[in-house]
Amino acid sequence: MKFTCTKNDFNNGISIALKAVPGKTTMPILECVVIEAKGDGIILTTNDMQLGIETKVPAEVKEEGIILVNARMIADIVRRFPEEDVHFEVDENNSILLFCGKSKFNIPGIDHEEFPMLPQIEVENEITLSQFTLKEMIRKTIFSISDNESNKIITGELFEIKGTEFKVVSLDLVRVSICKIQLKESYDHIKVVIPGKTLNEISKILSGDAEEEVKISFSKNHVLFEFGDTMIISRLIEGNYYNIEQMLKNNYETQVKVNKKEFYGCIDRATLLLREAEKNPVILHINDEEIQMEMNTNIGSMDEEVYIEKEGKDLDIALNPKYIIDVLKVIDDEDIYLYLFNSNAPCVIKNKEESYIYLITPIYMN
Amino acid sequence: MKFTCTKNDFNNGISIALKAVPGKTTMPILECVVIEAKGDGIILTTNDMQLGIETKVPAEVKEEGIILVNARMIADIVRRFPEEDVHFEVDENNSILLFCGKSKFNIPGIDHEEFPMLPQIEVENEITLSQFTLKEMIRKTIFSISDNESNKIITGELFEIKGTEFKVVSLDLVRVSICKIQLKESYDHIKVVIPGKTLNEISKILSGDAEEEVKISFSKNHVLFEFGDTMIISRLIEGNYYNIEQMLKNNYETQVKVNKKEFYGCIDRATLLLREAEKNPVILHINDEEIQMEMNTNIGSMDEEVYIEKEGKDLDIALNPKYIIDVLKVIDDEDIYLYLFNSNAPCVIKNKEESYIYLITPIYMN
Repeated sequence: MKFTCTKNDFNNGISIALKAVPGKTTMPILECVVIEAKGDGIILTTNDMQLGIETKVPAEVKEEGIILVNARMIADIVRRFPEEDVHFEVDENNSILLFCGKSKFNIPGIDHEEFPMLPQIEVENEITLSQFTLKEMIRKTIFSISDNESNKIITGELFEIKGTEFKVVSLDLVRVSICKIQLKESYDHIKVVIPGKTLNEISKILSGDAEEEVKISFSKNHVLFEFGDTMIISRLIEGNYYNIEQMLKNNYETQVKVNKKEFYGCIDRATLLLREAEKNPVILHINDEEIQMEMNTNIGSMDEEVYIEKEGKDLDIALNPKYIIDVLKVIDDEDIYLYLFNSNAPCVIKNKEESYIYLITPIYMN
Repeated sequence: MKFTCTKNDFNNGISIALKAVPGKTTMPILECVVIEAKGDGIILTTNDMQLGIETKVPAEVKEEGIILVNARMIADIVRRFPEEDVHFEVDENNSILLFCGKSKFNIPGIDHEEFPMLPQIEVENEITLSQFTLKEMIRKTIFSISDNESNKIITGELFEIKGTEFKVVSLDLVRVSICKIQLKESYDHIKVVIPGKTLNEISKILSGDAEEEVKISFSKNHVLFEFGDTMIISRLIEGNYYNIEQMLKNNYETQVKVNKKEFYGCIDRATLLLREAEKNPVILHINDEEIQMEMNTNIGSMDEEVYIEKEGKDLDIALNPKYIIDVLKVIDDEDIYLYLFNSNAPCVIKNKEESYIYLITPIYMN
C-alpha cells in the first residue's frame, strides 16, 4: 500500500473521522482509523459502535491497500508535518512509513480484519435538506435532551417528517424544545429518535452552508447522513417517544413581549448569586409594563425591572434561570413572546409562526 | 461609604487585584478584596500572604469608608452589569448595595479589621526599568524554575544587580536559564530570590509597554513593584542561591548554528512519540553539515535531518526534547547557537552577546 496526499486534505479528512473515535474505551481497536487506498483517493473509516464515519480524501494512490492505525497518533503526526505532500507506505509487516520533507516516521499498523466496519443498511425513506437547516434545527433543540441513561429515549431527539413538515423535539421532563420547518418536497411519515451524541458530532462536522445539501436516509434501526465526501451512520434509539401534542395548549392567560437582549442580561446577572449546585428560582412578577425580576440566595439578593408589552392578567412565576438562558441563547429574534397560564403551568416561549416552541416547567411557589 | 465609578475602571482594577486572591484557601478571608473609598478614588487591596496587591481606581467618592467583600463575587457582578456607571453604597450593617442601570444587587460585606493589610517595608535599594524589559526577563527564564517545595530556593528566581548589569537566573538542577541586560543607571550590589509565583502574576499584570516604567524596591525580606496605579509586594525567599558562575565554561569542542524554526519543528514532531510520563531523549548526531535527529519510543520511531553550520568535532548527544522546546519557545532570534563539550556535559544555547544563556544537562548514553 502506497499513496501521497496533501497535508491539508489529510488533516481535513482525519478531523472529521476523529468525531467517531471514543475518548475512553475498553476496546482499544475503536481508537483506530481504517485507511483504505483505492482508485483516486483514500477512505478513512472510524466507528465507536454507535456512530460510524466514512470520509474520502483525494490522494495519488500508487498501490492499493488497507491498514488500521491509531487515529489520534496519525492525526497528530500529519498536523505537525511541514506544509508539504505526505507520503504513506505500508510494508508486508503492517509497518507504516510516513515521509514529509526530511521528516520520517515509522509507526506500527494493525491488520484491519479486526475492525468493526460500518453496517450496510436497507434504506426505507430519505429526505434532503440544506446543511444550514439541519445544523440550526440541532442547535435550537439539543440543549434540552436528558443525560439520564435510565430513560434512554429522551437522551435522543425526535425527528418527525409528515408531508412537508419536518419537526425536531427534545425534552428532559422539566422542559421541551420543538423546532419545525417546511421542506421543499413532501415525504411519507417518518418518526425516529436519534441519539443526542450523534447529533452533537454531526453538528460539528456540518459546514452550516445554506447552499450545501445533506441527504438523510432511514432504515429500521439506523440513520445515514451523507454530505460532501462524508457519510455518517448512527443507530436509532428504540421505543416510543413522548406524545408532546397534549402538552401544547393555547388558552393562555397572559402574553408578554420583551426585548431578548435585555431579558437575557437580567437573567444572566441573577445566576451570579447561585453557587453550583443551587437551584433557586428567579421570580418574575409580571405587571402591566414591566417584569420585576427577583432572586434571593444565601449569597445575596438582586432585583431588576425589564420593560414589556403585556396582554392579559398580572402573574407571578418562579423559573430556573438556567433553563431560560438556554432558550434565549438559541433564539435569534430581537423580541420574544412569553405565554403563561398560571404560576404552576409551564411557561411557553414561541414565535408567531411556531417555528420554535419552548416549554419550561416552573418551580412551585407557596 | 458611597461612591460611583465606571464599569470599565472597576473591571480593570479588580482584574489586577484578583491576581493575589488564592484559588483555594483554608482562610476564606483571603478570598476578599478590601475596598477603600478615599479622596478621588478607591483603593482595592488583596493579599494571599505571600503576594499583596494594591491598585487605585478613579471614582467619585460621596462618602469615604472601607469594606471587605468576596473579590470574585463583586468582580463577576460588575462584569455582567450593563455598560453604565456603577454605584456602591455600604450601610451601617456592612450590607453592600450595588446599582447599575435598573439592576440592583444586595450582598453582604465584612468588617475590614480582620483582613491582613499589606506590610510597610523599609526600602534599602531600588531600581527602575521598563515594563517591557521586566516582562521579557521573566518570560525568558520562568519556565525553568523548580516546583519542588522541599528545595524552596529554586522555586524562585535570582535577581542580581551589579553596577549596570541586571541578571535573572532560574534553575531546576537539570537546566539553567540566565538572562542579562544593561540598565541605564549604575546601582549598588543587590542579590535576592523572588518567588516564581510572584513573577508569574506580575508578568500577567505588566503591560509590556517599553515606554512605561516599573520601580522595584528591595527591603530585607520583601520586594515591591510599583507601576501605573498599582503596587505589588511580595516576600523574598531566604537562603543562598546556587553559584552558577562555576557552571559556565568556554572551552567547548563543538559550535553549531541552526535555523530556530526548523530545529523547533523537528523536535516538536519528535515529542509526538512520547506518552505523558515518558522521558525518552531525542538523540542528536551532529555531523559536518547537518544534525540527524533520532527518536525511538514504544509508539514508533522518527528521524529527520536539519542543516547546520558547524565548527569543531562531530558529537552525539541525548537531550530531553521538552527542555529544548522550552528554550526555543522564548528565543526570538532566527538562528541559534549550540555549544557542546562532550556527550555527557550540558548543552549550552546562548547568543554571542550572552544576553541569554541556557544550559541543558544531557541524558546519559552508553
